[in-house]
Amino acid sequence: MTDADLAARLLDGDVRALARTIRMVEDRDGAVEEVIRQVRGRVGSAWVSGITGPPGSGKSTLTDQLIQRWRTAGHTVGVIAVDPSSPFTGGAILGDRVRMQRHATDRGVFIRSMAARGHLGGLASAAREAVRLLDASGRQRVLLETVGVGQSELEVMQIADTTIVVTTPVTGDAVQILKAGILEIADIFVVNKADLPGAAKVYRDLRDLVRQTKAHDAWPPPVIMASAAKGDGVDELAGEIERHRELISNNGELDARRRRRVEAEVEAIVVERAAERARTALRQGTMGAALDGDLRDVDPYALAERILNGHPPGA
Amino acid sequence: MTDADLAARLLDGDVRALARTIRMVEDRDGAVEEVIRQVRGRVGSAWVSGITGPPGSGKSTLTDQLIQRWRTAGHTVGVIAVDPSSPFTGGAILGDRVRMQRHATDRGVFIRSMAARGHLGGLASAAREAVRLLDASGRQRVLLETVGVGQSELEVMQIADTTIVVTTPVTGDAVQILKAGILEIADIFVVNKADLPGAAKVYRDLRDLVRQTKAHDAWPPPVIMASAAKGDGVDELAGEIERHRELISNNGELDARRRRRVEAEVEAIVVERAAERARTALRQGTMGAALDGDLRDVDPYALAERILNGHPPGA
Repeated sequence: MTDADLAARLLDGDVRALARTIRMVEDRDGAVEEVIRQVRGRVGSAWVSGITGPPGSGKSTLTDQLIQRWRTAGHTVGVIAVDPSSPFTGGAILGDRVRMQRHATDRGVFIRSMAARGHLGGLASAAREAVRLLDASGRQRVLLETVGVGQSELEVMQIADTTIVVTTPVTGDAVQILKAGILEIADIFVVNKADLPGAAKVYRDLRDLVRQTKAHDAWPPPVIMASAAKGDGVDELAGEIERHRELISNNGELDARRRRRVEAEVEAIVVERAAERARTALRQGTMGAALDGDLRDVDPYALAERILNGHPPGA
Repeated sequence: MTDADLAARLLDGDVRALARTIRMVEDRDGAVEEVIRQVRGRVGSAWVSGITGPPGSGKSTLTDQLIQRWRTAGHTVGVIAVDPSSPFTGGAILGDRVRMQRHATDRGVFIRSMAARGHLGGLASAAREAVRLLDASGRQRVLLETVGVGQSELEVMQIADTTIVVTTPVTGDAVQILKAGILEIADIFVVNKADLPGAAKVYRDLRDLVRQTKAHDAWPPPVIMASAAKGDGVDELAGEIERHRELISNNGELDARRRRRVEAEVEAIVVERAAERARTALRQGTMGAALDGDLRDVDPYALAERILNGHPPGA
């Protein structure tokens, strides 16, 4: 199929076209930009939830339960599982394979995992494009799953409309998990494995933290007790996602978030291309030659300005 | 004093001019660029050693001992202590204050610490400029000290001509410490606190690692047993730094490293300015207005290209 076919078939919900374009994103195939350009006007209907938390907190099981709820409600579903810390190459599946098997025959569920290849900024970009393709292909509920709560996970979570942070009594106290900007991005907290000792304390700590810091927000993040393995708390989670969706769709917050996301995306593209332009310029032509002589004669600021201003690669 | 005076006095070795220009770097005072431009031709005589290792490995004590050796040998010394993980603002002093007191009356020793303010890339840039100013002011031996062995420390270490990695029997086994690219950047290993149990094993592990991976290099990194608190091993360390200096000054490696450093610096400036340009452009004028309408009509790639090509801030 040609790229034009690809865009048309993607918009038609064709699963093979979806798989192929997401693979193109992973392979950094430049041709996907044109596909995305063609489908862009049809993007924005999917509700994108992000789910993050430490390893072992039960994100995969929660994801699996959410998929079932959404399918029961008649929604089509797309899942992108992202593991910034994993060095293995794409194609492999994060988390439990049971989940894959259960939904393997359901064409209403599309699951793809992405691992860190190249630098981390690239992974966030790839996840953003994959989510956009799922959206264009008509997936009504998209879930973005990451492992861990580090800087790169935060970057990935910025793609989500609703961010779910999962913790457990096992994986440490609330405050520990809430370091590094997690409180700022969380829209919903889930205390999973709520039948384990200590769950009530984690719940109270989180609820107090929300009260202390977010009580006057339009959306003080709810804290949900869950036991995903038994399905407990999942209906409440699905309900809170829809409540959050209703609220921010109507109070201007969604528009503000999406605008910030586009700004961040444009900035990321500018930075990536500027860096590429610098690397290319410094290895060839007059810019490269500037470094062949006495380096003390080189003014890095002036050279940087020349590269930025009107000296595209090869000029 | 005017900026022209500042440059002249800096080149003259004036300590107040040095302190003031380094403070300008910390404060991101744009006027320092002009000073650096004026002194650039006089940079390149200082030998810059970087010293890194986990907290508690005795870097400060080693630094103190090296300062003494260098002063005894008649060299002037500059030290920049960088702590990327510390949130406190500048001016405070990393490590032991005893060291400061000991050298407080010696105008041949200039010590300044820098903490992370703003983003990490900015700290590496600030450290690079500070080292350059120390160099221009005639400091013959410059030491760059960082805590930890994370990504930001690696960035800072790229400024050094000779990189010293300190480990101890206490701070964990060699392999653990050598994760994340440390082996690639180390020119000299120091096993400090060599009188503690386990030191011999750490020494053997490191030596074996060097033999396995660097045996055929022009400079297989030496492994030095030291007990900095007693002064043991410090003469050997100072000697190896000079040996490394001799070798790479004469075999082309120093020129290659310095060229790579300038390339990295130019790329960093390009990236920083491109990001700034993007942020400015997106908040005003036609670029900002492009985000006021339906975001589905926005092509981030096209917008990024427009920002990169001939749309400077304010245009």
